[in-house]
Amino acid sequence: MTPTITAFERSPDRGKGQARDMRVRWALEEVGQPYEVRLVSFREMKKPAHRALQPFGQIPTYEEGDLALFESGAIVFHIAERHAGLLPDDANARARAIAWMFAALNTVEPPIVELEQAPYAERDKPWYEERLPILKDRIRGRLDELSRRLGDADWLDGAFSAGDLMMVMVLRRLYGSRILEEYPNLSAYVARGEARPAFKRAFDAQLAVFTGASTGR
Amino acid sequence: MTPTITAFERSPDRGKGQARDMRVRWALEEVGQPYEVRLVSFREMKKPAHRALQPFGQIPTYEEGDLALFESGAIVFHIAERHAGLLPDDANARARAIAWMFAALNTVEPPIVELEQAPYAERDKPWYEERLPILKDRIRGRLDELSRRLGDADWLDGAFSAGDLMMVMVLRRLYGSRILEEYPNLSAYVARGEARPAFKRAFDAQLAVFTGASTGR
Ligand SMILES: N[C@@H](CCC(=O)N[C@@H](CS)C(=O)NCC(=O)O)C(=O)O
Ligand SMILES: N[C@@H](CCC(=O)N[C@@H](CS)C(=O)NCC(=O)O)C(=O)O
Repeated sequence: MTPTITAFERSPDRGKGQARDMRVRWALEEVGQPYEVRLVSFREMKKPAHRALQPFGQIPTYEEGDLALFESGAIVFHIAERHAGLLPDDANARARAIAWMFAALNTVEPPIVELEQAPYAERDKPWYEERLPILKDRIRGRLDELSRRLGDADWLDGAFSAGDLMMVMVLRRLYGSRILEEYPNLSAYVARGEARPAFKRAFDAQLAVFTGASTGR
Repeated sequence: MTPTITAFERSPDRGKGQARDMRVRWALEEVGQPYEVRLVSFREMKKPAHRALQPFGQIPTYEEGDLALFESGAIVFHIAERHAGLLPDDANARARAIAWMFAALNTVEPPIVELEQAPYAERDKPWYEERLPILKDRIRGRLDELSRRLGDADWLDGAFSAGDLMMVMVLRRLYGSRILEEYPNLSAYVARGEARPAFKRAFDAQLAVFTGASTGR
């Protein structure tokens, strides 16, 4: 059964691949699962019909027959669990890959989202400029630790996994801040993720929503 | 094989059960799995030996034979996957329970942690007091949505699951802020979680670290 995901009708980033449907698209491309996309407007997202799928009125969602899921982490995990290619077979390696998914979403992403939200939430406040370095240093604290752990390895725990997919997507949120560039091994890690054919197909598909190009699907 | 988890030698909350080992203890108690606890000091947590287990120098960790895991979300999921009692058998209900774990950790917890961290990070800043209502309103935005979704149900998706365990633990971080009290159904939901015998056993075990009482283990 072909799953359907939701994505922004108009993404604030105009197709740079920062919207969280990109995580799901990439996972689906890695495992070779075709999918449908339903575009939703900001207004529709906050209406009861969409909230029945996503209680917080956001994208992405995932529908497949009777199953409706939300949270990009849960959707990527669901895909990874049902198809080969995103989680190792070895039980311990699999558990560690899942730990990296949670690390991406619960340890690395929150301070990055704080920096990202500040211009929307507090740009007109007198403290806005002065807080930015504080927010950036919190991110650096996490990246120092992540960079040290990654070292010169290609991926976080041996082979590429859903943990890397999620971490690469979270680190990409730093584009524009110039912080990622302070960490050559993390920059190379993100570039390695972006070089995967499945990433490129997913990227092109989300970009096509904005350029109006056909996705070939 | 008896797993070993790590917990704070001295928790800043003096045993109110806010440290994240509590999530893991509760999950282990729900499934009836005995465990060992290794207490670590703040200094030890930041040393290479601990960072080998937890790259960000935090607790909790989980060791079981060859397997070493970090991230409370990943540890609770690992326990839930290997024992009955924390995830439904039905495949779709199981996927939805996992979605609630990610919602707790990636959607509801981040703004709560912001409010919690502010006194440590920004108490001496001129904007500290003025930002507090902004932080609280962000939390209310999430709780409005969560409260609406929960309605008068006992648990988020039918039977109690690891998703509820994680959400209850995240909402408990609001104690002291008086925000949870604005949502009678969410307060009752948290109380329902705390009333579970497994929660109580876990709570008593973490409290015993601080009172010096024997845990009976
Ligand atoms: N934790 C959620 C976050 C979802 C999220 O933040 N989605 C954004 C797009 S990337 C959104 O819908 N924003 C619009 C809004 O929050 O109103 C997930 O990972 O799926
Ligand atoms: N995302 C991590 C967060 C772990 C975490 O924040 N642990 C706290 C205790 S509850 C800690 O070790 N804090 C000390 C520190 O960060 O230096 C998880 O869920 O396991």
